[in-house]
Amino acid sequence: MSDRVFTQHLGGKIEIKSKIEIHNRDDLSIVYTPGVARICMAIHESPEKSFDLTIRKNMVAVVSDGTAVLGLGDIGPLAALPVMEGKAMLFKKFANVDAFPICLATKDVEDIIKTVKNIAPSFGAINLEDISSPRCFEIENRLRTELDIPVFHDDQHGTAAVMTAALINSLKLVHKKMSDIKVVVNGTGAAGIACTNMLLDIGVKNIIGCDRKGALHQSRNDLDQTKKDYLSRTNPNNESGSIHDVIKGADVFVGVSSSNILTVDDLKNMNKDPIVFAMANPDPEIMPEIALPHVAIMATGRSDYPNQINNVLAFPGIFRGALDCHAADINAEMKLAAAFAIANCVEENALTRDHIIPSVFDEKVAPAVAAAVIKAARKTGVSRK
Amino acid sequence: MSDRVFTQHLGGKIEIKSKIEIHNRDDLSIVYTPGVARICMAIHESPEKSFDLTIRKNMVAVVSDGTAVLGLGDIGPLAALPVMEGKAMLFKKFANVDAFPICLATKDVEDIIKTVKNIAPSFGAINLEDISSPRCFEIENRLRTELDIPVFHDDQHGTAAVMTAALINSLKLVHKKMSDIKVVVNGTGAAGIACTNMLLDIGVKNIIGCDRKGALHQSRNDLDQTKKDYLSRTNPNNESGSIHDVIKGADVFVGVSSSNILTVDDLKNMNKDPIVFAMANPDPEIMPEIALPHVAIMATGRSDYPNQINNVLAFPGIFRGALDCHAADINAEMKLAAAFAIANCVEENALTRDHIIPSVFDEKVAPAVAAAVIKAARKTGVSRK
Repeated sequence: MSDRVFTQHLGGKIEIKSKIEIHNRDDLSIVYTPGVARICMAIHESPEKSFDLTIRKNMVAVVSDGTAVLGLGDIGPLAALPVMEGKAMLFKKFANVDAFPICLATKDVEDIIKTVKNIAPSFGAINLEDISSPRCFEIENRLRTELDIPVFHDDQHGTAAVMTAALINSLKLVHKKMSDIKVVVNGTGAAGIACTNMLLDIGVKNIIGCDRKGALHQSRNDLDQTKKDYLSRTNPNNESGSIHDVIKGADVFVGVSSSNILTVDDLKNMNKDPIVFAMANPDPEIMPEIALPHVAIMATGRSDYPNQINNVLAFPGIFRGALDCHAADINAEMKLAAAFAIANCVEENALTRDHIIPSVFDEKVAPAVAAAVIKAARKTGVSRK
Repeated sequence: MSDRVFTQHLGGKIEIKSKIEIHNRDDLSIVYTPGVARICMAIHESPEKSFDLTIRKNMVAVVSDGTAVLGLGDIGPLAALPVMEGKAMLFKKFANVDAFPICLATKDVEDIIKTVKNIAPSFGAINLEDISSPRCFEIENRLRTELDIPVFHDDQHGTAAVMTAALINSLKLVHKKMSDIKVVVNGTGAAGIACTNMLLDIGVKNIIGCDRKGALHQSRNDLDQTKKDYLSRTNPNNESGSIHDVIKGADVFVGVSSSNILTVDDLKNMNKDPIVFAMANPDPEIMPEIALPHVAIMATGRSDYPNQINNVLAFPGIFRGALDCHAADINAEMKLAAAFAIANCVEENALTRDHIIPSVFDEKVAPAVAAAVIKAARKTGVSRK
C-alpha cells in the first residue's frame, strides 16, 4: 500500500472548497441564515434562477453504477469511485467544470433513472459513466427525455467525438471522402454503437459492425433489439463472416472491444492506405509497432503511443459549452461540432500520420470545443441563453 | 439582484477542488487510467478500503427534500440548495469536513430512503437537513438501520445537543439539578422531540410538550402516533391546558416553534430563576429585551443577542469525530457526549448569564466535540477504528 499510486489516493482525490471565506457573523449571515433566505425565495419564485444562484451553474454529476469500469468490468460502485473522482479532476483541470462522483448501489435501470432524476436539483448536467451496454442506452435516452438538463454518456459520445475527429483528419491525409469509405467497427457495445451513429451522421455510407460472432448481417438470428436496430442502419451490402472476412477492402478499422484480434494479414487485406483505430483497453487490437509498416495511420487509446484517442479531448469542452449556454440537451449536432472542433485544433500544416489529433494537454482544445458546442446549441435551439 | 447577498451567491458558494495537480501524462496515469485500476481492484477485493482510498473518508451528503427550510417551510429542493451549500461551507470551515448538497426532487418517504441508499457509496456519512416532521423520523430511523454509515438529522440532534449544552451550563449558574427541574417544550416537531429525548437521556424527569393546541396530555384524542409516543415518555403529572397554563412553575422553557408566544406574565409564573431558550426563527418566542428583567438566563437562536444556540457548535465536530473513528452510527451516547463537550468549552470562571455557551467562532469547540464523540463511539462499540 506504500507506493505512489496508493499514497496519492489516500483520503480521495477531490475535496469541497468554499468560494467565499467566512470570517465573522456578518459573513455567516450572508452565506447562511438569515441572509440566504432571500436567495431561497428568489429561486422559489423563479426556479430558473437556480442556474445562476447555486452550484447548478457549473456542477456536473458523474454517475456510474460500476458495471463497466475501464477494462475491469462489473466491479461495483465502491470500486468505481476512484475512477469517477479522477474524472472529476479532469473536468476541473481541462474546463473548470465542477463535477461530483455519484456511485450508485443499484444496477436496476428504473431505479437508476429514478435516482438520477431525484438528485438532479443539485446539478446543471449529468455525465453517465461506465454503465454497461445495452442498459446504458435506455438510461441515457430516458434521462435525456425526462430531465431538462443535459445528459451525456461519455463512454458513447466522448469516444465517438474523438474518434470522429481523428477520422476527419486522417481522411485529409489519405485524400478520401467520408461518403466513399468502408468502415469496420469491432464491438457493438456503448462505444461501438455511438461511433457508428456519429459516422453515419457525418456521411459514412458503408459501416459493418462486428460482435464476438463476426459481422452483424441479415441472416443472423441471434441479434437482440439493440443489434437489430444497429443492423438496420448499417451493412448495406449485407456482408457476412468473421472480422477477418469483412475487413477485406475496408478503408477504416475502428476497434473498441477485443485486444489483439487483428493480424498483419488483416491489414494487408484492407484497402489502400488503411486507417486503424485500435482503441481496446488496456491492449489495442494490434500493437502499433506491428501494424505501422502496413497502415497509413494508426491510433490507439494509449498515452505511450502517438495519436491517443482519449475522451478527455471531448467531454470537458462539451460540458463547458453546454453549461455556459444553459443547454437543455447535448444533441447530435453539438457532438459533431465537438468532433470538428477537436479535428481543427491540429492545423493543416502540422497534420502528419503521427499527429492526427491534438495532445490531451493542448489547452486550445476545450475552449474550442466549448465554443463550437455553444454555436451548435444555439443553431439547434437547445440553448437557453 | 445587485446587492451583496445576491452577488455572493452567483454561481454557487462551493466548488470542487483537486487535491493533486495534473501536470503531465505521468500524473494522469496515476490519478486516472491505467494507474487507478489498481486502486479500483484493491477496493473491489476489500470494500472497506473505500473509506481510506476515496472521498468517503471525509465526504458527507447534506440531504434535503426542501420541505422545512429555515423558517420558510416547504419551498422545494431548488430553493433549498443555497442553504445546503451554506451548510457545506460550515462543515468545511469548522471541521474540515467535505460536504456536498443533495437536494431531492421527491417528498415520498420510501423514495427518499431508496435514493439516499442508492447514492451512499459516494459518502462516508449522511446529514439529513430541513426535512419536515414527522416524515423525518422514519427517514432517519430507516436509514440508520439500513446503512452502515452514520445518518444524522441535524435539525433534531444538532439543535438538541447545543440546547442541552446550554442547559447544562445554565443549571450550574442557578444551582439546580436535571432530575429536579420541570421543562416545558413548545413545539413537538423534529427539534422539539429531539430536545425532549436528549433531556430524558440526561436525567430530566418532568417534561411537558406543547403543540399549537397546548399541552400533550392523556385526555387529548387528536394525537398522531408520533405525539402519542412522545406523551408516553413525558408529562408524568398529566398536566393539561395551554402553554400559558403549563408554564406555571416551570424551571425551563424550550421554544422551537412559534414566535412571540410568551408574555411577561408567563415568565413571572415560572419557578424561581427561570431559564428561557426561545429558539423560534426568525423571531424568538419572546424578545430578550422584554424577557431579561424577569429571567435568570435567556438564550435565542439569533446571532445579534448573547447566548446563541446554533447547531454549528455541534454538527461539524460530531461528523468530524464520526468520520475519524469510522463510526457505523451516531448514537445517543455520542450526541450527549457532544453536548457535554460544548458545555465544557465555557470554563467555569467564564460562565455568566450572558455566556452559557461558546461563540460559534470558538475554534476549540469542533475538536473538543470530535474527541468526545470518538470516545463515546469507542465506548459504545460503534467505532471501526
